[in-house]
Amino acid sequence: MSPQPGPDYARLFRKGAPEPTPRFTGFPKYNFVGGHNDPTRVPVAALAEAAAAALTREGASLALYNLGHGPQGHAGMRDLVVDKLRRHRGVACTRDDVLITSGSLQGLDLVNDLLLEPGDTVLVEELSYGGALSRIRKRGVTIVPVALDGEGMRMDALSDALDGLKARGVVPKYLYTIPTIQNPTGSILPLERRQQMLSLARAHGVPVFEDECYADLIWAGAQAPPALYALDPAQVIHIGSFSKTLAPALRAAYAVAPWPVLSRLLSLKTDGGTGAVEQMLVAEYFSKHFDSHVAALSGVLEGKLQAMLEAVAREFGSAAECFVPKGGIFLWLKLPEAVDVRKLVKPAAERGIQFNPGPEWACDPESAKSQLRLCFALPSKEEIREGVAAFARVCYEQTGIPAQSGNIRHAPG
Amino acid sequence: MSPQPGPDYARLFRKGAPEPTPRFTGFPKYNFVGGHNDPTRVPVAALAEAAAAALTREGASLALYNLGHGPQGHAGMRDLVVDKLRRHRGVACTRDDVLITSGSLQGLDLVNDLLLEPGDTVLVEELSYGGALSRIRKRGVTIVPVALDGEGMRMDALSDALDGLKARGVVPKYLYTIPTIQNPTGSILPLERRQQMLSLARAHGVPVFEDECYADLIWAGAQAPPALYALDPAQVIHIGSFSKTLAPALRAAYAVAPWPVLSRLLSLKTDGGTGAVEQMLVAEYFSKHFDSHVAALSGVLEGKLQAMLEAVAREFGSAAECFVPKGGIFLWLKLPEAVDVRKLVKPAAERGIQFNPGPEWACDPESAKSQLRLCFALPSKEEIREGVAAFARVCYEQTGIPAQSGNIRHAPG
Repeated sequence: MSPQPGPDYARLFRKGAPEPTPRFTGFPKYNFVGGHNDPTRVPVAALAEAAAAALTREGASLALYNLGHGPQGHAGMRDLVVDKLRRHRGVACTRDDVLITSGSLQGLDLVNDLLLEPGDTVLVEELSYGGALSRIRKRGVTIVPVALDGEGMRMDALSDALDGLKARGVVPKYLYTIPTIQNPTGSILPLERRQQMLSLARAHGVPVFEDECYADLIWAGAQAPPALYALDPAQVIHIGSFSKTLAPALRAAYAVAPWPVLSRLLSLKTDGGTGAVEQMLVAEYFSKHFDSHVAALSGVLEGKLQAMLEAVAREFGSAAECFVPKGGIFLWLKLPEAVDVRKLVKPAAERGIQFNPGPEWACDPESAKSQLRLCFALPSKEEIREGVAAFARVCYEQTGIPAQSGNIRHAPG
Repeated sequence: MSPQPGPDYARLFRKGAPEPTPRFTGFPKYNFVGGHNDPTRVPVAALAEAAAAALTREGASLALYNLGHGPQGHAGMRDLVVDKLRRHRGVACTRDDVLITSGSLQGLDLVNDLLLEPGDTVLVEELSYGGALSRIRKRGVTIVPVALDGEGMRMDALSDALDGLKARGVVPKYLYTIPTIQNPTGSILPLERRQQMLSLARAHGVPVFEDECYADLIWAGAQAPPALYALDPAQVIHIGSFSKTLAPALRAAYAVAPWPVLSRLLSLKTDGGTGAVEQMLVAEYFSKHFDSHVAALSGVLEGKLQAMLEAVAREFGSAAECFVPKGGIFLWLKLPEAVDVRKLVKPAAERGIQFNPGPEWACDPESAKSQLRLCFALPSKEEIREGVAAFARVCYEQTGIPAQSGNIRHAPG
């Protein structure tokens, strides 16, 4: 049989179908994007042992959808979430309040799918997680930004935004916030602001959608107030993840919410359940080793942040303003207004450097055209130093900024 | 702080948000629904060993999204798919043609999301997988049924359906078919019909969406012609799964399709990747043990089918017409027209019996009101015998049918 041409697929795709994804050709040498973690900090031997133990004990139940534990997920995994949230985030909940999700991205999708339709409005921190912004935009929903400062969302700005919407008769569907290790600015919202935020949310009847993906990775000595969910469970839909504390290729995250919400998220979660082996593995390993693993990992990450801060200071000098994070895996930078980071993406990629351009992390893309996010968990300290130097060189070649790196004054490339 | 009532969520949910899911209270005693498998046939020790081996060898790469293998999935898992499809389904493809999905339900969702919008039309076998039907309906898409007989889809019916649509100027978005162990009738489409189907699909420019979820579970001695994808790769979007051959709580499935399609499915798969540990585990175990495991499992399943056929014959006698499957995990039954199985759901549940009412597996629900699906992989032979007897009793009490079970003539309950 001779090869057939196939149907005219381009004519069959639905309106607005996304552009094709190019073939994957590997990661860049200096990979400063994404939620990757440090490969040397994956507890390989302990995970192998935990997987074998859990499978030996519970493996037969893999024959049942959701292991027979129901669609909210593996009971041990939910108990792990309950215990972690109680000890670290001040939350009092039970396994009945927890829904295990296939990554926190699924949590975002489920909450959006429950609440949002085209024409709706949501409130979001002016700089926020790119994956959340793109998902909201794809649904044709209006994003109202709320200003940030070094401690997170500004309550005067939130109050003004809510009043402004109220005056126009608009009830926003939710207030999306990353209060603990804000993405991308790395701040921790103080307790007083948390209480003000909840008070405003209650007064306006707006649910708070709290994303705590990075909240467990806090530098030693830094303190985080209780989660918003801990302070007012009825008002808050809370999501979190183990992808950042253990490994992102594991899709092990959770949502915690009032039952009227959770029971409908369940109805929208039509995936046949989150992968059971990953749940068994995370429950087995982290029910014994969460605190010690996270403390050690946070120490390593803080060391990498220091290496990156030093490299940025050395290579960019006063041209870069750093938002020093209190935890997490990323650094937010502001370059002079004359620099449009979007124009650096391609020349940087040609030198093997990838970074997150600020506009992708901003409600108003233009406002963040000189800002960028650099992730530091994956690269080694040496790669951080080399990569930041190479990036400064690219930036200089394209914009003349920074004019000096280290004690070297650049000559035109 | 006194408990707060929370926002008025019911007013905030989007239009058409689904009803809440009730609390999970465990499986019924006689569980004849769903893709569960036989807990005694999960190779627990070998899986524990495989997980430990794979994690020890590759665990560090969990720190990278998709293990650094790219969004199509774990390389070894894709190679497993390629090898299995080559040896068992006549398919020539490479790992570049394969997308690993989190269960074949995700494959259904991605293909639907790429092709369908409200008002579209698709062709589906008149009896088909309930999960596929409900997903298509949710998108506001018209389903045109194509008649089945004991060998699967009838080609005269397909030809008529395509001509009828053409006459009305309608180009269907796809023809969804389960050619190998049809769900729910258990048939295998002969080679000649496969070639006719592809010829018709080509002539009308309609993609064939081939679902082979059960194709690996075929009774010894039965033969299956090559997959439709093997016969014309350009015309076919193919999905399959390891959930049925290994364990459904593992979400390990795949799609194989021409790159113009696959590259766009990738753009729609915004989940951060399918769980990596499950992929590592399936690749490790099944790259060594696929044939032996599946042969042994199929033998066990065929034995359970025999137990179910005997129980149905004993309890229902000539009142039940069985569609004896050539593989898989379910039996399709037809009861006399006087029986509306929808009215048996509640009384059966009160006796601990759950089954799939025919209407949920039919393009035209009313046409299948006397039909039902019984899954036999999970229950033991004893549970099959007891459960079928209990179900016959319920059916008799509600409808007077069957009047006799075994050599017992029923007295009114």
